[in-house]
Amino acid sequence: MTKAAYQQLELHFSKLSAIAGASAMLDWDSAAMMPDGGSSARAEQSATLGVLSHDLQTQPIVADLLSAAEEDVDTLNTWQQANLREMRISWRHATAVDADLVEAYSRATSASEMQWRQSRANNDFASLVPHLGEVVRLTQTVAAAGAEAFGLAPYDALLNEYEPGCSSADIDILFAELEDFLPEFLGQVLEHQASKPEILMPDGPFALENQKNLGQEFMTALGFDFNHGRLDTSHHPFTGGTPDDVRLTTRYEEDDFTQSLMGTLHETGHALYEQGLPSEWRTQPVGHSRGMALHESQSLLVEMQLSRGPEFLSYAVPKIREAFSGRGPAWEMENINRLYLKVEPGLIRVDADEVTYPLHVMLRYRLEKALLSGDLPVADLPDAWNAGMQDLLGITPPDDAVGCLQDIHWPSGAIGYFPTYTLGALSAAQIYRAAHDQIGGLTQDIEGGKFGDLLSWLRTNVHGLGSSQSTEEIMIGATGTPLGTQAFKAHLQARYLP
Amino acid sequence: MTKAAYQQLELHFSKLSAIAGASAMLDWDSAAMMPDGGSSARAEQSATLGVLSHDLQTQPIVADLLSAAEEDVDTLNTWQQANLREMRISWRHATAVDADLVEAYSRATSASEMQWRQSRANNDFASLVPHLGEVVRLTQTVAAAGAEAFGLAPYDALLNEYEPGCSSADIDILFAELEDFLPEFLGQVLEHQASKPEILMPDGPFALENQKNLGQEFMTALGFDFNHGRLDTSHHPFTGGTPDDVRLTTRYEEDDFTQSLMGTLHETGHALYEQGLPSEWRTQPVGHSRGMALHESQSLLVEMQLSRGPEFLSYAVPKIREAFSGRGPAWEMENINRLYLKVEPGLIRVDADEVTYPLHVMLRYRLEKALLSGDLPVADLPDAWNAGMQDLLGITPPDDAVGCLQDIHWPSGAIGYFPTYTLGALSAAQIYRAAHDQIGGLTQDIEGGKFGDLLSWLRTNVHGLGSSQSTEEIMIGATGTPLGTQAFKAHLQARYLP
Repeated sequence: MTKAAYQQLELHFSKLSAIAGASAMLDWDSAAMMPDGGSSARAEQSATLGVLSHDLQTQPIVADLLSAAEEDVDTLNTWQQANLREMRISWRHATAVDADLVEAYSRATSASEMQWRQSRANNDFASLVPHLGEVVRLTQTVAAAGAEAFGLAPYDALLNEYEPGCSSADIDILFAELEDFLPEFLGQVLEHQASKPEILMPDGPFALENQKNLGQEFMTALGFDFNHGRLDTSHHPFTGGTPDDVRLTTRYEEDDFTQSLMGTLHETGHALYEQGLPSEWRTQPVGHSRGMALHESQSLLVEMQLSRGPEFLSYAVPKIREAFSGRGPAWEMENINRLYLKVEPGLIRVDADEVTYPLHVMLRYRLEKALLSGDLPVADLPDAWNAGMQDLLGITPPDDAVGCLQDIHWPSGAIGYFPTYTLGALSAAQIYRAAHDQIGGLTQDIEGGKFGDLLSWLRTNVHGLGSSQSTEEIMIGATGTPLGTQAFKAHLQARYLP
Repeated sequence: MTKAAYQQLELHFSKLSAIAGASAMLDWDSAAMMPDGGSSARAEQSATLGVLSHDLQTQPIVADLLSAAEEDVDTLNTWQQANLREMRISWRHATAVDADLVEAYSRATSASEMQWRQSRANNDFASLVPHLGEVVRLTQTVAAAGAEAFGLAPYDALLNEYEPGCSSADIDILFAELEDFLPEFLGQVLEHQASKPEILMPDGPFALENQKNLGQEFMTALGFDFNHGRLDTSHHPFTGGTPDDVRLTTRYEEDDFTQSLMGTLHETGHALYEQGLPSEWRTQPVGHSRGMALHESQSLLVEMQLSRGPEFLSYAVPKIREAFSGRGPAWEMENINRLYLKVEPGLIRVDADEVTYPLHVMLRYRLEKALLSGDLPVADLPDAWNAGMQDLLGITPPDDAVGCLQDIHWPSGAIGYFPTYTLGALSAAQIYRAAHDQIGGLTQDIEGGKFGDLLSWLRTNVHGLGSSQSTEEIMIGATGTPLGTQAFKAHLQARYLP
């Protein structure tokens, strides 16, 4: 009976995986292909698949099968046991919140997201307040339900959806260490960089076709498998699709190739994680990527640790020059190197360098906890935002459009997500350090454009593990220690204050 | 209760429509976007949505709701009544065949389709025989089930899935009239064309980007709404997606723009039908296109009746010349005109001109009836095919790859589909004739590149009716008479023996 129960569960979760895959493809299409007029029909398609999936997930038989399989868990092998554990967690997430709340939440976040686009365009926070207020209110209800189901604090219940096993207590420790270090370090870096000659921007235009070809060349070199994925264009770059068919998007600007190229490399890190998930477990919960922190670690490992480093640039810059027929001082290795490492406190998170980025995240982490607890009324967000920016980055936004209206996360209901960006940055530094310690000749490989050993190390130590271990177990397995700030701080020191 | 029952049915069918829309998008993606490595994950996604849809369609509650709504049908308005009728038909199709047979059939046709690709490539009919035999055997079972559910002959039960309300008795009459006319007419046309100077092919290469821009220009002029659709590339051109987001594909050859352009115009006819379906009924059965014959009539109306006609070419040829900087005798109006009207018996249906095309269809109609009845064993197909080609077109294929292996239809289980191509050609001629009779100044409009009146006439008389009337009612409403061969024959006479 137990084996049969477990196997029925595998079938059930394969079905859910197929529906999730279909939904992911529709999401990619919406962002990369769909004409505007298709949006309401698409919304119906996505909502219908969402409801069908939720119905399947919460069928009463699933609870019975889970209990039956768990009773005789010893008959299962290690991966199956881990899969059963992940199935149970997935089921608890699905059943924690009842269908009516799921629907109300989905409707409120859609409406709020739509309003946000307009409010941001018009720099009009007041128009967002009622919508965001409703989203926060419903998120409080969702968090309370999750807190009860998982025995966690409400904020941690939300955080767990993105980063299983992580608590705000863990984050507080790491963020406190960063807050001790970053402001002073930032001052030193700014001073150091100010003492150098001005950085030159290569002159465009840079033909989009050439930018795309160059991006594809680097993707291929890094190990992206174009038989199982594509590169397209969308307004906001992202990595979507399924592990068997990864849909990566980027955006191009004709007068600046630098952002687009690093954007493509960032998404390539996400894509390599997806393509490296254990192939025989991809339709099962245990075969999914472990969490958002580890996912972001893979994108930042490729973009920040690898691609902005001098070894990679010594391989890449000649190719970049060739692609755009670049000549003159702006195209010198030293200048491109400094261009990609420029540090400058700014208003916009997504444009931030790796030194100031964590400060943007800390601000959001503070504020979203206060929003969730009710300590910070939604209407007071702009003042709190501006005060926090001044405190952490020493600048005050001139308006809300480049202040508290800049991110889609809260209007779309993603509270508890922001910290994973910085957990990802810390993880990336620690994993990249470990890779260098464990792979002989990696520096020379990178200079020669050879990334095979790095990729297979990541496959073995991160990608191929799927969700068979916890994030902490994966970190310890790969790097020897739990996640800390030491590798990240050492990386910043070595790179920015050499 | 009845109103409630009807309204529950509308909700139920909206859900089915959303799933069908999602499936249609995945199908388009498979053909136009997906890398090869994505195919098995995609197959799982599509199969899962298919099973979910079939499960929903055959829920016992649907039968109860249909009966309840039908009991009090007088409380519904005309469109609702027509919708209820179409719901019942859709339900009968879904329930006629049990789930196991649906699954076995789907598996057999997938395997047979895959084998067909290889068998055709290797010119090896023998390797297809077992697979095609199984498909024919299962199709016989499906036809028998449909025959019982609908009280029809087995072949007519299959035909009805593509062309509701049509019987082989109707087809026999129309095809007999064509068979009386076409062979002699074809001889006269060949003689007439042989007496003219040789047709010149414009010299390429024709940049794909220019071909695409030209296609988009004509699509826009004809009324295709790019806010609700796209033009992309696939190996076999088709029109997919949903009425709110029509995904049209074509293919380009660098050394010949002529086929690709007409292919795009053909698909544009299909697309205009989809975009013109009644917007308030699109999620309901009554809002669907009426059937394959009428669908093909719209593509052939645009491609054959309109676009190969001298009025259209007098508008289009200058634009074509400009797009490709065409100069010289091959680019003269007269030459392009004759190029687009060249008649020549050939081996391949999809390459056939409008005079010989029906002969290809008649051959397949004869043979598929014999396959279904069991009179023609699958192993004997090549001989029967070659004899039929000699009989109808006067040529014998040198091998099966360009003979009975050329079409995907039978290996993929589509028996009863082929006649709709010729019903479409007959309908196109009759509808186009009626449009000319009813729209003042249409010839001049077309010469001036103005298609608005034609499109609104089609919207009123065909597209906008959805499935609210039968095909025959729509034909009578639009043209004054049921479908016949007279308009088609008159069209061929006027065009090819002027």
